[in-house]
Amino acid sequence: MDGSPGAYSPHEARALFRDGLRTPTAGWCTGRTQANLIAVPRDYAYEVLLFAQRNPKPCPVLDVSEPGATSTTVFDGDLRTDLPAYRVYVDGKYADEVDDVREHWRDDLVAFLIGCSFTFEDALAAAGVPIRHVEQGRNVPMYRTDRACRSAGDLAGPLVVSMRPVAPDLVATAVRVTSRYPAVHGAPVHVGDPSALGIDDLDRPDFGDPVEIPDGELPVFWACGVTPQAAVMASRPPLAICHAPGHMAITDGHDTELVVP
Amino acid sequence: MDGSPGAYSPHEARALFRDGLRTPTAGWCTGRTQANLIAVPRDYAYEVLLFAQRNPKPCPVLDVSEPGATSTTVFDGDLRTDLPAYRVYVDGKYADEVDDVREHWRDDLVAFLIGCSFTFEDALAAAGVPIRHVEQGRNVPMYRTDRACRSAGDLAGPLVVSMRPVAPDLVATAVRVTSRYPAVHGAPVHVGDPSALGIDDLDRPDFGDPVEIPDGELPVFWACGVTPQAAVMASRPPLAICHAPGHMAITDGHDTELVVP
Repeated sequence: MDGSPGAYSPHEARALFRDGLRTPTAGWCTGRTQANLIAVPRDYAYEVLLFAQRNPKPCPVLDVSEPGATSTTVFDGDLRTDLPAYRVYVDGKYADEVDDVREHWRDDLVAFLIGCSFTFEDALAAAGVPIRHVEQGRNVPMYRTDRACRSAGDLAGPLVVSMRPVAPDLVATAVRVTSRYPAVHGAPVHVGDPSALGIDDLDRPDFGDPVEIPDGELPVFWACGVTPQAAVMASRPPLAICHAPGHMAITDGHDTELVVP
Repeated sequence: MDGSPGAYSPHEARALFRDGLRTPTAGWCTGRTQANLIAVPRDYAYEVLLFAQRNPKPCPVLDVSEPGATSTTVFDGDLRTDLPAYRVYVDGKYADEVDDVREHWRDDLVAFLIGCSFTFEDALAAAGVPIRHVEQGRNVPMYRTDRACRSAGDLAGPLVVSMRPVAPDLVATAVRVTSRYPAVHGAPVHVGDPSALGIDDLDRPDFGDPVEIPDGELPVFWACGVTPQAAVMASRPPLAICHAPGHMAITDGHDTELVVP
């Protein structure tokens, strides 16, 4: 690779991934919006979209493809090849991780691109809030809570949250900054007390890695994009295609477009 | 009626409408969110929801019912009787205006409650921005623009905007206040030049009434909830049930819940 990943355009990055580069996308294409991918058959699309409408914090939809289309308005690439890695689910069960899903794609697949916390982590860092899991070289820890999402047809499940430790004097900044990004999970759902969310042990996340909480910092919880993915898989669609964790869709959108005043 | 309409609870107001009172709902149930109603058969619901996702400014969805249900999470009344008046459309054509749609209701109807500008007009007035069409006792003027919405399947059409005159020294206030209400059309789409939107004559609105623009005030344009209604009717669903203009669904939600920081 020439240059730093942050300097690539989305077009350039997607070409590298299409040609076989397999890498997590954190830090790539600075300022461009990265997204979660969930593609399901058209018969399941209404429930996914309705689940998102009813649960906008964990499930902020950035764009929806036409059935069978391989690009969307905000993703001017090929959804089947231009992510660095994919996971394929059959009947809701994990079947395979691949870097090209052309052989799995169907004409009735509808792709949902869903906002990702990379966007607000960049904004937090720019506002002077350290991102501890990045400093520690780990994936963000995620937890199932005891809060149920509003269901939509067969789609149901608990709210899943991500956790980032924040110093008490920066909690207000963290709330203020992320509140302005409703399209990427928005303000925290909870500050300070894991047990109030039904989380017994911060050291044992349900997804991702545990993160060390520096002395005096508070655990702050945001709605997480794993929520809709878990709900969709529990409904057992015959086929679902998702990005592999951390290997996101790099869209042509700019993070700045997601800020509300 | 006892007392002022603003003092009624949503429960009380809906009971009066159910018992036959037929009145525009502007000024009723202060602080409670009023909504546009569009109910269509389940087969059309995905396209309506997708059109809304693709055009959030003119089509901010507050809630979606289960098929056939007569209430929703934010509307704890009977959608068939508890609005003061309804319009029934058959094959996309206006068929009847009634105050009870029980005989038209179907088990497969999905009701969409869509944000309404009453919410942000209250916020504008509270911030000291006069609402000229209210002062003049008229309906807000609405115009078809030359801007196309993003289509969703068969749903397509132009962006429809409402216009409110605002004094130059209050334009910034009007932008700032309405920006904070993305669930009710948000910030203006345009300030000052009707021709840039393809509007030839402000005195001849496509919907509503012309409003007199006080000397020196600028026409300010917001996305309008008529946009999705026009697109839905153009797609000719076999049945659609809407609120009659100005005779809104009074929900149990609070306007304050729609504010973003």
